[in-house]
Amino acid sequence: MNMQFRWYGKEDPVSLSYIRQIPGLKGIVSAVYDVPAGDLWPEESIAHLKAEIERHDLAFEVVESLPVHEDIKLGKPSRDVYIEHYQENIRRLARHGVKAICYNFMPVLDWTRTQLDFPLADQSTTLVYFQHQLEQMDIEKDQLSLPGWDTSYTQEEMRKLMAAYRALGAEGLFENLDYFLGNILPVAAEENMNMALHPDDPPWNIFGLPRIVSCEEQIDRILQLDERSQHGLTFCSGSLGCNAKNDVPALARKYAKKGRIHFAHLRNVNLYENGDFEESAHLSSAGSLDMGAIMNALFKEGFAGYVRPDHGRMIFGETGRSGYGLYDRALGAMYLQGMWEGLQIHTKKGQVAT
Amino acid sequence: MNMQFRWYGKEDPVSLSYIRQIPGLKGIVSAVYDVPAGDLWPEESIAHLKAEIERHDLAFEVVESLPVHEDIKLGKPSRDVYIEHYQENIRRLARHGVKAICYNFMPVLDWTRTQLDFPLADQSTTLVYFQHQLEQMDIEKDQLSLPGWDTSYTQEEMRKLMAAYRALGAEGLFENLDYFLGNILPVAAEENMNMALHPDDPPWNIFGLPRIVSCEEQIDRILQLDERSQHGLTFCSGSLGCNAKNDVPALARKYAKKGRIHFAHLRNVNLYENGDFEESAHLSSAGSLDMGAIMNALFKEGFAGYVRPDHGRMIFGETGRSGYGLYDRALGAMYLQGMWEGLQIHTKKGQVAT
Repeated sequence: MNMQFRWYGKEDPVSLSYIRQIPGLKGIVSAVYDVPAGDLWPEESIAHLKAEIERHDLAFEVVESLPVHEDIKLGKPSRDVYIEHYQENIRRLARHGVKAICYNFMPVLDWTRTQLDFPLADQSTTLVYFQHQLEQMDIEKDQLSLPGWDTSYTQEEMRKLMAAYRALGAEGLFENLDYFLGNILPVAAEENMNMALHPDDPPWNIFGLPRIVSCEEQIDRILQLDERSQHGLTFCSGSLGCNAKNDVPALARKYAKKGRIHFAHLRNVNLYENGDFEESAHLSSAGSLDMGAIMNALFKEGFAGYVRPDHGRMIFGETGRSGYGLYDRALGAMYLQGMWEGLQIHTKKGQVAT
Repeated sequence: MNMQFRWYGKEDPVSLSYIRQIPGLKGIVSAVYDVPAGDLWPEESIAHLKAEIERHDLAFEVVESLPVHEDIKLGKPSRDVYIEHYQENIRRLARHGVKAICYNFMPVLDWTRTQLDFPLADQSTTLVYFQHQLEQMDIEKDQLSLPGWDTSYTQEEMRKLMAAYRALGAEGLFENLDYFLGNILPVAAEENMNMALHPDDPPWNIFGLPRIVSCEEQIDRILQLDERSQHGLTFCSGSLGCNAKNDVPALARKYAKKGRIHFAHLRNVNLYENGDFEESAHLSSAGSLDMGAIMNALFKEGFAGYVRPDHGRMIFGETGRSGYGLYDRALGAMYLQGMWEGLQIHTKKGQVAT
């Protein structure tokens, strides 16, 4: 297990100097943020990011995310230019030592929550998804803005985008993913770059937009498109775990066994009976997911890939980027490392995952 | 395992509101701090402390420390009054739901470090003990002040105290501990109060003062004085672990097996070859102690007692009470809880410590 921590670059309210003080971290997950989706990442920007991270005694081996342009997802004729850019970005990142790239194939919206500062009983705040709140939103009329959403669209553009995706449907979206993968995986294989597809978050359709990376059946179908080891997953326990039908430990075990988990996002969620959820502290007892069973699944399969704590609550009076404060994620990193060490103890004489 | 967190009362820069946001904590370890050593703790103060802690959904079941007056340690005639106070304090604390009391029998000085803000490579600061720094201190001439030290003595009083302890010697100190235990353990047994003796920190003589709770042989001798289960230890990995001759996991296993560990302080230290040490982050790989082996020893013996993370570094720009900042101790609490959960996974069908 190679423990990482996400950092949003110079604009991140959390400094690398502080992140470095979290024990056991090996590296930073980051991206070049000042380039529009689909454009080339300047080599100087990549080199500068790497140097800044390494100056803090951390490695830069995981990119999150290298965004996929909407034209690729929609299968527009212009996609080929963006795919060429994507290929070239893979080559450039490989040249600078990056080993894994996290990406997703969600239309328009990235991860979606309906409230970012829901107060818990202990006065911390967290991200939640309440269906009744979602139903009050009209993405085609209101100027909505949530982290992870691209806010550069006008309302008119948004309406057109939404209509295009609805016309495309899940099967069309899948075909476009297939086309994309068919073009980038050969480059990834050449460069020995692990491509780590992130599941949909939450794992169901929102605003009628198709989502195709939400459950075992969908993931199996996608992984079967190409058997190269570079074609893998960002295994996100919190995204998959929002649907109680997803058996997260079983999925962790299955895909780790196949060697298809290149990066794991490990966090817990607290599911309500009606399907709503709140993001909880990482601890198993704080939410609905059995984090021990998930970690054990990875451990048993000898998982040695990249891991990071995921969204944290806002605790200790911290303000900042929702889900990405320093403190609760640092607690998560320590909890996960302690668990891993505990799992190793009984197998010290046998095969030990690192 | 019952995870606790130490709090120094209203004057503590760390608030209960923040402590409560650390996942998995069951209770607060605290004391009545505005009463001189040896005096009675007012019932209202105990009740108020308990109410304040419970208002934050935490339990108040562990006191650290109930100080032992120097006259008891020195065996002065006045000790009997102080012992009566001690007995009465045990009764009062039991009445308010306290289950365990941490105390120590170190002459004059409590835990001793030579620098409280030693900078580590990651720019965090920590407590260290460097012999060459200690040799520059003259406790009888300089007005020294370190946390845990009673600074109410004049230099003249300090000289007399030091002389009295040197004359007393280790054997005399042991006899005075025996006398003290002979008087308080019957009360503790009546009240079902676990008395948890803390080892010397560091576990060797300082400034020529005798220390008698520093190693296995000494602890065995003390525990043999009374076989009642209420006569037990605060098992402090960081204190015992400063002497490389102490096999901390073996001691944890031995005393847990005997049911004599009522409270555990779990932290790591980084030992130098010359015997100096710095306090490190809790993680095994951050220091010299194998925290996994220590936790596993407790786990194997079905330990279900109180535990707390111990001294932390100062990280994330925190300022405050040396060793007792919020952040690094919170990281320790999560690391230890993760480890415990990891240890439980392979024994879920068998006997499980809680």
